[in-house]
Amino acid sequence: MFKINENYLKLPGSYLFSTIGKKVKAYEEANPDRKIIRLGIGDVTQPLAPAIIEAMHKAVDEMGVKETFHGYAPDLGYEFLRKAIAENDYKTRGVSLEWDEIFISDGAKSDSANIQEIFGADNKIAVCDPVYPVYVDSNAMAGRAGDYLADRECWSNVIYMPCVQENNFAPEFPQENPDIIYLCYPNNPTGSTLTKDELQKWVDYALKIGAVIIYDAAYEAYISEEEVPHTIYECDGAKACAIELRSFSKNAGFTGTRLAFTVVPKELKCGEVSLNALWARRHGTKFNGAPYIIQRAGEAVYSEAGKAQTKEQIAYYMNNAKVIREGLLSAGYRCSGGVNAPYIWMKTPDGLSSWEFFDVLLNEANVVGTPGAGFGPHGEGYFRLTAFGTYENTVEAIERIKKM
Amino acid sequence: MFKINENYLKLPGSYLFSTIGKKVKAYEEANPDRKIIRLGIGDVTQPLAPAIIEAMHKAVDEMGVKETFHGYAPDLGYEFLRKAIAENDYKTRGVSLEWDEIFISDGAKSDSANIQEIFGADNKIAVCDPVYPVYVDSNAMAGRAGDYLADRECWSNVIYMPCVQENNFAPEFPQENPDIIYLCYPNNPTGSTLTKDELQKWVDYALKIGAVIIYDAAYEAYISEEEVPHTIYECDGAKACAIELRSFSKNAGFTGTRLAFTVVPKELKCGEVSLNALWARRHGTKFNGAPYIIQRAGEAVYSEAGKAQTKEQIAYYMNNAKVIREGLLSAGYRCSGGVNAPYIWMKTPDGLSSWEFFDVLLNEANVVGTPGAGFGPHGEGYFRLTAFGTYENTVEAIERIKKM
Repeated sequence: MFKINENYLKLPGSYLFSTIGKKVKAYEEANPDRKIIRLGIGDVTQPLAPAIIEAMHKAVDEMGVKETFHGYAPDLGYEFLRKAIAENDYKTRGVSLEWDEIFISDGAKSDSANIQEIFGADNKIAVCDPVYPVYVDSNAMAGRAGDYLADRECWSNVIYMPCVQENNFAPEFPQENPDIIYLCYPNNPTGSTLTKDELQKWVDYALKIGAVIIYDAAYEAYISEEEVPHTIYECDGAKACAIELRSFSKNAGFTGTRLAFTVVPKELKCGEVSLNALWARRHGTKFNGAPYIIQRAGEAVYSEAGKAQTKEQIAYYMNNAKVIREGLLSAGYRCSGGVNAPYIWMKTPDGLSSWEFFDVLLNEANVVGTPGAGFGPHGEGYFRLTAFGTYENTVEAIERIKKM
Repeated sequence: MFKINENYLKLPGSYLFSTIGKKVKAYEEANPDRKIIRLGIGDVTQPLAPAIIEAMHKAVDEMGVKETFHGYAPDLGYEFLRKAIAENDYKTRGVSLEWDEIFISDGAKSDSANIQEIFGADNKIAVCDPVYPVYVDSNAMAGRAGDYLADRECWSNVIYMPCVQENNFAPEFPQENPDIIYLCYPNNPTGSTLTKDELQKWVDYALKIGAVIIYDAAYEAYISEEEVPHTIYECDGAKACAIELRSFSKNAGFTGTRLAFTVVPKELKCGEVSLNALWARRHGTKFNGAPYIIQRAGEAVYSEAGKAQTKEQIAYYMNNAKVIREGLLSAGYRCSGGVNAPYIWMKTPDGLSSWEFFDVLLNEANVVGTPGAGFGPHGEGYFRLTAFGTYENTVEAIERIKKM
C-alpha cells in the first residue's frame, strides 16, 4: 500500500495570497462600484521591453524553420546566456565567475524551493522572520523543519532570526549554529538591505561555523546606494560558502515569462564533494532546460538597448516606491524600505494587527497590501506595499491613504 | 557544519547520452570527412507547426503592451489550456476529467522526476527494465532506491520488471508487491505497447494491492492501432489508482519549447488525503507556472490548424519508423516497435553486446543509435533507433546499415 509524504500534512492550510484574494473578492462583490488598487503581490505591471520582444519574435521565427529549429536545450542552460550573465552581472562588479558556475532555470521560486534537495535531511536551516515563505515550506516538505507549532506560528526545527525595527531589520547571529542560512537582500518583504561590511560578517560567520548561505538576490537591480553589494561574491570568501539565486522577474519583468539562474561556485565544497556538481546532477536529472525562446529573451536583457530599457522600467517602479515612502511618511506613518528595493514596509498605526490594518485599508481606501504577519510572527505589526503598480494607481492609492 | 544529500553520491557516474556524445565526438575528430547520422537521442527535428508559431507571435506581442501584458501565471496552469486538454485529449476518448485535475508544467522530465516527492520515503517502486532513467534516478536522489549495486547494475531497493523478447516486452506482476509502479506506454525505449485489456490487468492489480501507477504516456500521439489505449483512464477504476504524465514534446515538437501536463484525478486518495491536493501544493510551492507564451503555444496545438499540422508531423516521423523497421527486417535483423511508437528496438546481431554494436554501427555505417544496456541490464543485447531524424537521413542510414 502506497504512503504519501506525511510532511505535506504538517503544512499550515491556507496560503497568504489566496486568503488575500478571497477577502478582496468578497469586498468587490459587496461593493461593485469601488475601484480597488492592488499594491499587494509582487507582480510587475510594465510590459516587456521592446528589445526583449524583438528577440523573442526572432527566436519564434527560428523555431518555425527546419534549419534554425531548436530541440532540447542543454539542461543547465545555453552557453550564450550563461556567458552573458557572467560578463554583465558579475565581471562588471569585479567578480570573476566561469560560465559553468551559472545554472539557468525557469524561475527563482523553483530554484529557491529546489536548492535544499542537494543537502541532507539532517541540516538545520535558519531564516529571517519575516521571510518569503518558500524557503521554509520547501524544507518542511522535505522533512527538515520538524513540526509546525500552530500557536507560535513556527516550525520546531527551524532557527528564526527576527528582523524588526529595533535591529534595523537585519538579523543577528543565532544562538544555535545553523547549517544552512537563507538570506534575501534587498529583502522581501522588508525592503531592507545589508551593507557590504554587514554581509561580509555573515560570510565570515558561515565560514567559521561551516554553514552554507543561500543568498537570494532577486531584487538586486533595485539597489541605488553605493555601499550595498549587488552580489554576495563581492565579499571575501563568499565563493567557499554561498550559493546565489537571481531572477529576471523583477529586473526585466519576467514574472510571466519565467527565467532565473543560480550560481554555485566550484570552490563551494563539502569535504571533497563539489556542490556545483551536485546541482548539475539535480538539474540534469529533474529539469530539461528553459525554453530556447525565453533564453534568447534573457540574452536580450543584456543587449545595449535591453539594458537601457529595463533600467528605465526599474526607475519607473522606484519612482513609485518614492511616492509611497514619502507619502506615508508625510502622512505620519512609519515605514522603511523603498530605497534599494521595490517594497515599502510600514508599521501599522494605532497598535492594529497587520490583518486588522489590511481590512481597514481595503474598506476605507480600497487599497490592497500584504499583512506582515503573513511572512512570519515577527512581521506582525507591519504591512507591505509594493512599487510594482502603475504610477497613476500608486499616486491615487497614497492620496486615499492620506485621507483615511 | 552543513551536510550534503548523500544519496547523490550513490548515483552511478556517467550518463548514457554524455558517453554517446563523447564517443561520437572522438570519432568525428578522427574522421572529419564522414557524415554522421544521428538516430540516437529522442529529439525531434521538424520545426514547430505554423499554427503554433502564429500563436506565439501573438502572445509575444501581447507581452509587449501594457494592456495585454501577463505577469505571474496561475501556478497550476491557465484555465484555457487545462480546459483544452480536458476537451481534446480526454473527452474525445470518452474520459471525463475536470480541468483542475490537469496540472501544467515545464516538461514531462520535470514531472516524472518530481512526482515522487508527494510520496513517503518508505515506498517501494517498481520499474520496467529497460527503462527511462529519470524514474529511478529521481527516487534514488530521494533515498528511496537503496544502494546501487554496480556489479548487477541495479538498485538494492527497487523492483525491476524485465521486459524482453520472451515476454513480448510486457512486464509481469512482480513477486514482491510494489507501492508505486512506473509504466510508460507506448514504451521508451522498446517501442512496445499494452492493449487496453493488458493495461486493465495492471489497473486491477494496482487497486488490489493498493499501489499507485505513474503512467507515462508521452508517446500517446504515435499510437496507430485500435486496441491500444491512449490514456490509462480508458481502463475501469484507473482514476482511483493512476497518475498520468503527458507531454507536448513528441506530439508537437516542444522538446526545446517545454510544456507538459500531469493528471491527478480527485478520486485518487490515500485514506482521506487527496493526491490532487498534494500535487497542487507541491506545484504551488516549488513551481511558478509555465510561461504565458508557451501555454498559448500549447493551446494552438488543439486548434483545427494545429491538430492537422501536428498530425502531419507525426505521420512524417512514423513513416521514418516504417523505413527503419522494414529496412532492418529485410536486412535480416530482428526488431520490434515502430508501429505505435517512434522507437525501434532491435536485437543486436551475432551476440554482440549493445555497446559493441554501437561501435560497429558508428564505425561501419556512421550511424548513431542508443545501446540498450544504457536503459538497464535487460536492455543488454538490444539497440534503440529513433524515427525523429529527417526522412532523407533515415533512408540513408538504413541503406548504410543494409550494406554493413
